[in-house]
Amino acid sequence: MSDEQDAFDAVVRAVHDRVTPDAEERARLESVAAELTARAEAAVEDIGVDADIVRVGSTARGTWLAGDRDIDLFVRFPDDLSRERLEAYGLQVGSHVLPEGHEEYAEHPYVKGEYDGFDVDCVPCYDVDSAAEIQSAVDRTPFHNAYLAERLDDALAGEVRVAKAFLKAVGAYGSNLRTKGFSGYLVELLILEFGGFRELVESAADWNPPVRFDPEDHGTREYGDDLVVVDPTDPERNVAAACSATNVARLQHYSRALLAGPRESLFEPHDPAPLDAAGVREAVRERATEPVAVRFETPDVVEDQLYPQLDKSLAGLRDELARRGFDPLRSARFATDEHAVLLVECGVAERPHVQRHDGPPVGVRAHAEGFYGKYDDDPDVYGPYIEDGRYVVEREREFRTPVAFCESDALFGVALGPHVESSLERGYDVLAGETLGALAPEFGDELARYFAPVP
Amino acid sequence: MSDEQDAFDAVVRAVHDRVTPDAEERARLESVAAELTARAEAAVEDIGVDADIVRVGSTARGTWLAGDRDIDLFVRFPDDLSRERLEAYGLQVGSHVLPEGHEEYAEHPYVKGEYDGFDVDCVPCYDVDSAAEIQSAVDRTPFHNAYLAERLDDALAGEVRVAKAFLKAVGAYGSNLRTKGFSGYLVELLILEFGGFRELVESAADWNPPVRFDPEDHGTREYGDDLVVVDPTDPERNVAAACSATNVARLQHYSRALLAGPRESLFEPHDPAPLDAAGVREAVRERATEPVAVRFETPDVVEDQLYPQLDKSLAGLRDELARRGFDPLRSARFATDEHAVLLVECGVAERPHVQRHDGPPVGVRAHAEGFYGKYDDDPDVYGPYIEDGRYVVEREREFRTPVAFCESDALFGVALGPHVESSLERGYDVLAGETLGALAPEFGDELARYFAPVP
Repeated sequence: MSDEQDAFDAVVRAVHDRVTPDAEERARLESVAAELTARAEAAVEDIGVDADIVRVGSTARGTWLAGDRDIDLFVRFPDDLSRERLEAYGLQVGSHVLPEGHEEYAEHPYVKGEYDGFDVDCVPCYDVDSAAEIQSAVDRTPFHNAYLAERLDDALAGEVRVAKAFLKAVGAYGSNLRTKGFSGYLVELLILEFGGFRELVESAADWNPPVRFDPEDHGTREYGDDLVVVDPTDPERNVAAACSATNVARLQHYSRALLAGPRESLFEPHDPAPLDAAGVREAVRERATEPVAVRFETPDVVEDQLYPQLDKSLAGLRDELARRGFDPLRSARFATDEHAVLLVECGVAERPHVQRHDGPPVGVRAHAEGFYGKYDDDPDVYGPYIEDGRYVVEREREFRTPVAFCESDALFGVALGPHVESSLERGYDVLAGETLGALAPEFGDELARYFAPVP
Repeated sequence: MSDEQDAFDAVVRAVHDRVTPDAEERARLESVAAELTARAEAAVEDIGVDADIVRVGSTARGTWLAGDRDIDLFVRFPDDLSRERLEAYGLQVGSHVLPEGHEEYAEHPYVKGEYDGFDVDCVPCYDVDSAAEIQSAVDRTPFHNAYLAERLDDALAGEVRVAKAFLKAVGAYGSNLRTKGFSGYLVELLILEFGGFRELVESAADWNPPVRFDPEDHGTREYGDDLVVVDPTDPERNVAAACSATNVARLQHYSRALLAGPRESLFEPHDPAPLDAAGVREAVRERATEPVAVRFETPDVVEDQLYPQLDKSLAGLRDELARRGFDPLRSARFATDEHAVLLVECGVAERPHVQRHDGPPVGVRAHAEGFYGKYDDDPDVYGPYIEDGRYVVEREREFRTPVAFCESDALFGVALGPHVESSLERGYDVLAGETLGALAPEFGDELARYFAPVP
């Protein structure tokens, strides 16, 4: 074994030890999970319905990172039960198991709450014969659990933990629509596919997306995604569908970095120190760009609704600023519980009064006469004159600065997410240039990441 | 005949009367031309060479505009005479005919001078059997003359004069490389082709370029030009080759205007009043653009060399300013005997310090690692970071303003005409924004046309 491999293995061993829960943590988790399962079974019996309790998720599969405190209990009802009944029973069981819990909503309503220091989800689902017959996405989860339980031994579970820690450090872990990263299930399938963390990293360093893996060799569809891992329990589904091209690239970039120079620091978060107002102003001054931020009250929707709407709104704003000649360099969206921000950093701060508008070739008579007639007597237009055989006019430009555009009602002409639009209608601020400093401290972390981007 | 046609004919009659030389002017021209021909014949006899004298050009064909005072004499030598001899004899005859004249150079040297109030060119050429056998372009001219002399009667000559006056008013008359308009010969052929001015105007109003005419139906080639008129004396040649798309479009535009509202003013120059320094500053302020002018000493070459070099240099400068993100709106070149100017009106006055530079997808490993390695340790670069699966860096921008670019040696990296380049090497000024006022009064006319463009 080479020195380099030794170094790699030493780093992985150290990380492994750090992220593996110790015996005490395991024992405590097992005891709380058993207690919760018993409480759920008692509730089912009380109601007198035919249902069983399945533990799912990383704590059920032994792949959780030390310190994580999530327990997921699924209450599995017969598949001939009506949806209304399932929802009602599900909430009954949930509130019995978690008396202090509250209702949340994914595909069904379910109960979420704290229990003895653990974050617990108690979710109703249907007991179907195969993943192909599911009635909603949550029905699939027990199949994932069963598939992995059969195949992940302790050694592989350790490799999964190391891989999760690696992706988490890079900011690429989590399939929520804010992160668009690797889900726990996806990491587990990749470790199974390659047989270990090192093997995954060596392969990822060499991927030339799109790449496709199909552990059960039963995939039936094509996908446009950079990474495709066909779900072993559902030939129709790409487990990596939510994983963005950027996060696939991050895994590749850091895999190469880790192979080239194995070090534990690559398993620790790479975030820069938050920026304060002065730091933001200095960053803006240094770059001499024209960053424009639209800040508004965060719409009251769950994150998996919020972030796609922010993304859509940001793309709309960025495209419109590009069309209007302000040449966006980069953009970002941030949100806390209070405020959301669409930030577009423009490469042009100001445009002339006039805007060139090319007309038809003079030789295309009907079209040319129409164009000439339209602009000839317009006092706000220079021209029409002829350039290279075409009519050209210069019209007055509607907005000379990105700020003027954002402050106008034209902002609502942009394709916005519906809840973003209603929030903007209730009012918003436009910050630009050095006044961007006012976004700190609320968005100090996000601005630090924006202004000191790491791969 | 409709009222509209009446109005058109009345306008044409009035213009015709204005531009037709009266009997006195004709008589005087004939007497001076006869005297010059006699002087040339005497010189030929003195030298003892076999040559004849041919009058060519509009005054020979009766198509000159009243007040024009150009007489062109061609001295036609046998085609077995050596080039050296032809040039020597040509100059001898020329200096005999025009004792006060000076030498100029087109394809051969020739003598140009004033005689009794007329501008006279005395040009040597070869007497060949057909235009296909010419040794240089001037040998073709007598064939043009002979072709037209056979076909243009007084009535058609009158139509030619009206057409020339119309094109002159529009700024589209003259095949020199400054104007790139319609040559006299081209106008004569078009009038022959259509049979009159009104017929030309009615046809031109409807042209959808490219359009092609071939009076002798003997053309052998295809051309990329908007207007093609195959030379009746040379099947290989497009008489309209030098005519720009813009000038063809001008003829079309004003033909429509004349048909829609016949008026004599369309036969008078459309130039606006010259701008003074204050007028230039006001125009710049109103448009709020960033016009940048490079002013230098006019290279000492003839106009037909100067303007193509200015055009090439201007295109090079404009393209480079576009590549550097300054979004040129329009541009122009002007020259007097003293100064030449390249003017590019930019739509962006200032750019940020940083400039985005997209790298390869992270998945293309060799290329991606090369890019990352190149920029990773560069302290002047932001990034590399990952966006949509690719590496991106932001580099320091070389020039933040169009002025900074023009003032730097990078200006010499632009494709410049050779004499423009040598003149710039001897020094130049850069004027921008309101300091453009300093171009008046020298370029007051040109700036007025630039800032108040007419079709």
